[in-house]
Amino acid sequence: MSRICVGVDFGGTSIKFGTVDDSNRRSETFQLDTPRDDGAEPVIAQIVRGVERSIAEAGVSREKVIGVGIGSPGPLDLGKGVIISLPNVPGMENVPLRDEVAKRVDLPTTLENDANAAAYGEFIAGAGRDTYEMVMLTLGTGVGSGVVHGGEIIHGAHGIGGEAGHLIVDPGGRPCGCGQRGCVEQYCSATFLARYTAERIRKQGEATSLAEVLDANGRLTAKDILEARNAGDALAEEVWEECCFHLAIACVSICRLLDPDCIVLAGGLTNAGEDLLEPVRRHASEQNWTLCEQKTEIRIATLGADAGAVGAAGVAWRVLGDSTNGAVRTGEC
Amino acid sequence: MSRICVGVDFGGTSIKFGTVDDSNRRSETFQLDTPRDDGAEPVIAQIVRGVERSIAEAGVSREKVIGVGIGSPGPLDLGKGVIISLPNVPGMENVPLRDEVAKRVDLPTTLENDANAAAYGEFIAGAGRDTYEMVMLTLGTGVGSGVVHGGEIIHGAHGIGGEAGHLIVDPGGRPCGCGQRGCVEQYCSATFLARYTAERIRKQGEATSLAEVLDANGRLTAKDILEARNAGDALAEEVWEECCFHLAIACVSICRLLDPDCIVLAGGLTNAGEDLLEPVRRHASEQNWTLCEQKTEIRIATLGADAGAVGAAGVAWRVLGDSTNGAVRTGEC
Repeated sequence: MSRICVGVDFGGTSIKFGTVDDSNRRSETFQLDTPRDDGAEPVIAQIVRGVERSIAEAGVSREKVIGVGIGSPGPLDLGKGVIISLPNVPGMENVPLRDEVAKRVDLPTTLENDANAAAYGEFIAGAGRDTYEMVMLTLGTGVGSGVVHGGEIIHGAHGIGGEAGHLIVDPGGRPCGCGQRGCVEQYCSATFLARYTAERIRKQGEATSLAEVLDANGRLTAKDILEARNAGDALAEEVWEECCFHLAIACVSICRLLDPDCIVLAGGLTNAGEDLLEPVRRHASEQNWTLCEQKTEIRIATLGADAGAVGAAGVAWRVLGDSTNGAVRTGEC
Repeated sequence: MSRICVGVDFGGTSIKFGTVDDSNRRSETFQLDTPRDDGAEPVIAQIVRGVERSIAEAGVSREKVIGVGIGSPGPLDLGKGVIISLPNVPGMENVPLRDEVAKRVDLPTTLENDANAAAYGEFIAGAGRDTYEMVMLTLGTGVGSGVVHGGEIIHGAHGIGGEAGHLIVDPGGRPCGCGQRGCVEQYCSATFLARYTAERIRKQGEATSLAEVLDANGRLTAKDILEARNAGDALAEEVWEECCFHLAIACVSICRLLDPDCIVLAGGLTNAGEDLLEPVRRHASEQNWTLCEQKTEIRIATLGADAGAVGAAGVAWRVLGDSTNGAVRTGEC
C-alpha cells in the first residue's frame, strides 16, 4: 500500500484537498468553502475536516500518511509557518496555521505560498514533471510565479524570490500595484490586459469591435480580446501581441538568469492555448540570443486548478519524505 | 597545517594562480603569461608549472593539497571539463583541460567558467562572504555574471544560466552581439558605455566637453565620461545616469526572481566607487517594489583581479572538499 501526503490549497473562497503518493500519483481533488466570518478558528477546523476526509478517501492506514502540505496566499512567515495577513479573509492575522493544523491532525505539516505550491505541483506531476529546473508563470488576476531549481523551490534570502510576475519588462512603463513600473503583471495578466484595453478604448476612442462589447458589458475580458483578435480586430491584435511580446521578454530574461528546462504558463490566459503559445514562442525566438540553440521549452500547464493542492502535497513530500532529488547537474553550451 | 586548493584563472593574455585554505583564507597570487602561439600543449604546461609553484609557495606537503580548480573563458563543456573553443587563443579547440591538468599534477581538478569562478571568489572571500545567495555582475569589456544559490553556482539546465549581463533591460533597444536587443551589457559595460557615447557625439554633434577628448584620443573611456560628468557635462551626466538606471533595472529584476542577500558589482566601471554605487542604489530604490523593505544590498567587489583565482580554488573546495554548505533556508516578507 502506497504512502501519501495530503495537499491543501487554501484560498479566499474555497479550500481544495488532494493526496499525492510516493510515486507522485495524485488523487481526485475536492473542495470545501472557506469560512469567512469568524476569523481563524473555523478556517482551521475546515482544513482539519478536509484533511481527515482526504485520508479517509485515500483508504490508507494512518501510519501511511507522511504529512500534510498547505499552500496559502500571503504574506506568510515561511520559517514559522504563520499567515501574517490575508487581504481577502478577515481575522487571519498572525495565524500559526502550520502548527495548529499539525497539532489537530497529529501529522507533520508544511506551509508554502500558493504560487510556489502550484509551480511545484506542475513540477512533480504536470507540465514540468520531466524537468529539473522549471519556472511557472500563472497568468490570472495578477501574475503568480514559482521557481524550481534542482527540485527545490527558490525562496531567496528574504523569502521573496520567485516573483517572475514582477520582472520589469518595460522600464518606466505602466505603474504596478507593487510600486514598480513595467512589471510583467501589468502586461500579461488576464485582468490587466482587459483593463488596459478598455482604458484605451474609453480614453482614445479607438475604432474596434471591442467598443460594442465594452458598452454592452461595462467591462472587457481577455476572452473578448482574443475573440476580437481572431476575428481580425486591429486593436485586439495589437494588445494581444504586446502582451505576448512582454511575456516573451520575461521568458528570455528568465533563460539568461536561470536557464530552466522549461517555462510553464498557467492561469486563465492559457485557455487561449496555441493562440497564446504561438506568439509567445515566436517573440521569444525573435528576442532570444543566437549564441547557442534555444533549449528551454515554453509549455502550458496541465494540472489546471489542481496544481495548488498537488504541489502542496509535493512540498510536504519534499520536506518530510525521503526524496533523493537535488543532485548537481552540469551542461554545455 | 592547513589543507589547500590551488586556483587557476586562465585568461587570453595571462594566467593567475593562488591558493585557498580550508578556512577560505587566500594566499598572494602571481601570474604567468599565456603562451599563444603553439596551441594547447604550452598552455597546459604553463598551468602545470604555475600549480606546482603555488604548492611550493604554500609550503604544504602534497597530501594537504585537496585539488586544483581552473576558471576559464568559454564556451566550455563543464560536464566533460573541456574547452570547446577560445576566440582569443588559437589552437584551443576541444581541449580536455581539466583531465590533462589533473593527470600531470596528479591531483583532482575542476573546470568552471571564469565569470562564475570570479563570482564564487567574492562569495567565499570577498564582498559576498557573509551571504548565502549572491549575484555578481562584472562591468568590464562586456558584462560577465555569476549566480550563487545556497553556496552553489547556478548553471541552469543546459549550462548557460547565470548570464545576468544579458537580461533584457530595454526591450527592442540597442542590438547586442548575442543576438538580443536591450541587454544589460549594451548599457552597463565600460566598453559599450564609451562606444555609445562616442557614437552619439560623432553622429549627433552634441555639445559636450567629451568632443575634445574624442578628437584628441580617437576614442573615449568610461573614465573620461565619469570625469566629464563630475565636471558638470550634461551629455556625460545623461549617459552615466542611463547606465546606472539600466543596471538598477537589472538589479530589481534579479531581486524579484532570486531575492539574493546581495548583488556584487565588479569590473572596470566599479573604479568609480560611490559615483557608481550612489546612482545605481538610488535608481534601484526608485524602481523597486514597495511591498516590503528592500533588503538585498548592492555592493562593490573587494577582491579585484584576484577573484577568478580565489573562486576557482573555491569551486575545487566545493566539489572536492567536505564543505557543509547548501542547507535550505526560508525567510519572511
